[in-house]
Amino acid sequence: MSAVLALDYAGVAVFAATGALAASRKQLDIVGFVFLAAVTGIGGGTFRDLVLDQPVFWVLNPAYVLVCAAVALIVYGTAHLMESRYRVLLWLDCIGLAAFAAMGAAKGLAASGSATIAIITGMLTATFGGVLRDLLAGEPSVLLRPEIYLSAAMAGAAAYTLADAGGLPQLLSLAAAFAIAFIIRGGALLFGWKLPRYKPRAGRDVGSGK
Amino acid sequence: MSAVLALDYAGVAVFAATGALAASRKQLDIVGFVFLAAVTGIGGGTFRDLVLDQPVFWVLNPAYVLVCAAVALIVYGTAHLMESRYRVLLWLDCIGLAAFAAMGAAKGLAASGSATIAIITGMLTATFGGVLRDLLAGEPSVLLRPEIYLSAAMAGAAAYTLADAGGLPQLLSLAAAFAIAFIIRGGALLFGWKLPRYKPRAGRDVGSGK
Amino acid sequence: MSAVLALDYAGVAVFAATGALAASRKQLDIVGFVFLAAVTGIGGGTFRDLVLDQPVFWVLNPAYVLVCAAVALIVYGTAHLMESRYRVLLWLDCIGLAAFAAMGAAKGLAASGSATIAIITGMLTATFGGVLRDLLAGEPSVLLRPEIYLSAAMAGAAAYTLADAGGLPQLLSLAAAFAIAFIIRGGALLFGWKLPRYKPRAGRDVGSGK
Repeated sequence: MSAVLALDYAGVAVFAATGALAASRKQLDIVGFVFLAAVTGIGGGTFRDLVLDQPVFWVLNPAYVLVCAAVALIVYGTAHLMESRYRVLLWLDCIGLAAFAAMGAAKGLAASGSATIAIITGMLTATFGGVLRDLLAGEPSVLLRPEIYLSAAMAGAAAYTLADAGGLPQLLSLAAAFAIAFIIRGGALLFGWKLPRYKPRAGRDVGSGK
Repeated sequence: MSAVLALDYAGVAVFAATGALAASRKQLDIVGFVFLAAVTGIGGGTFRDLVLDQPVFWVLNPAYVLVCAAVALIVYGTAHLMESRYRVLLWLDCIGLAAFAAMGAAKGLAASGSATIAIITGMLTATFGGVLRDLLAGEPSVLLRPEIYLSAAMAGAAAYTLADAGGLPQLLSLAAAFAIAFIIRGGALLFGWKLPRYKPRAGRDVGSGK
Repeated sequence: MSAVLALDYAGVAVFAATGALAASRKQLDIVGFVFLAAVTGIGGGTFRDLVLDQPVFWVLNPAYVLVCAAVALIVYGTAHLMESRYRVLLWLDCIGLAAFAAMGAAKGLAASGSATIAIITGMLTATFGGVLRDLLAGEPSVLLRPEIYLSAAMAGAAAYTLADAGGLPQLLSLAAAFAIAFIIRGGALLFGWKLPRYKPRAGRDVGSGK
């Protein structure tokens, strides 16, 4: 059980770091760092818990919020040392995506017993914090980036439900889900992996219409 | 009861189609189509259920999500056949708005017994999925369009509460609400109907201030 | 208890007025005024209640929504008389921020018993309505403004928890929290108070990276 908790805290911490990095790009003050770190770190899990009608995890255990605040302070002190803050943000987001796809699927499956729900809560948990971060920071949503993103979360969450259905112990199922989501999203970051994107008819006037 | 369910599925399906059309305008990949379709199709009803402290409808019945996924695949395969995807999006959004104004008012009235709450949940259910779609796709919100939009949802939801108070059977109340919202929003699309918009003083420097 | 209720209604009313002022800046119609006023007035408290697993306050008591509608009508009729609508919006937002930081901390502390949670719910209640207003109106988020904003909400919420821990009567704790948040945010508006903002290394290429 402590490995599960460690994965959960790790996901919160790395997403919080991406929120703090977004705050640094917007040149917010220290309270802005903490706020954006907290919203990003706990936003996805908050939405998951609301939808599943579970108590919100950080209301049960406020230590998650203190982790976000601590991470924000560390990033405030160290962001200037990074070569490319946006690149670091994308890799931390990748780790958080993989951790939350696994945890979100596990919580969704435990609460509902439905694989469909588990895959959705995995995707929601993995992406909603980053969506909030981008909305609040006024940046283009990471969802609209050309390389694979949502698909990695979906594959990780699906892997968890398959592993669980196959009778694997939870720890192995979580590890498999994390590994698959991380490898897919990491490969997308390293090699630009993408699925075919929708292409309108040749010669079409994209985005026109009334 | 099955007519009520049909109206609910129809609302989810047409809103899902608008989400998929927005995905096609942003040239997302197939998983992006499914995600944006699902968020748009079930977002309004999710928020309604959370606010009313009801179990979230698609957690009880994941078939709603599968409908969204199926619609996304169909749109992925057919969007290139459409003359103007944005025009189609607006008309499907009109059907979904009318269906969800009716269903949202019905659920709100059943859960709270208050006509005020019913009108609000009708408006929220009818508009929140489209708001999420536009936020995630980075498009200007449909709420800010010049012609009538919110008013159609309000009129439909109000019609439901009036019809219910007048003792009509639920099916007739839903049909009346749907028809009124559809006619008002459809007329706004066809003929540019609008309410008077707020006009600042002549010669005023709009949007200035510190 | 009636002083507490008065503070709550006052917070809802002034935030509703900021939503209506945003609607006037976007030249929406009268239903758009009411909608944006309601979302801004009750959005922060709605999110607070969902997270704390409490019944949503305006579902229990729809009068809050009617207050928002009345405020929207008043602003619709009087906004043209204002010298600078955005300046008025910022000052009303300041009053609402102070009222909701106090009320949000009080509700969070009562529901959870945790000072950390109370400070977070104070900040969420105070800021989330304004965040929704800016997202829906397509305006830059007030969170990104250079002068102190979040810090005022945090200081007010923290003051409430300290005063409560010190054994003060609730009314005095609320008044202290309101006063501290109002003075800090008001000073920021009057004198441009700001915390040091994050500054990247000299010569750094801000916002680059892949």
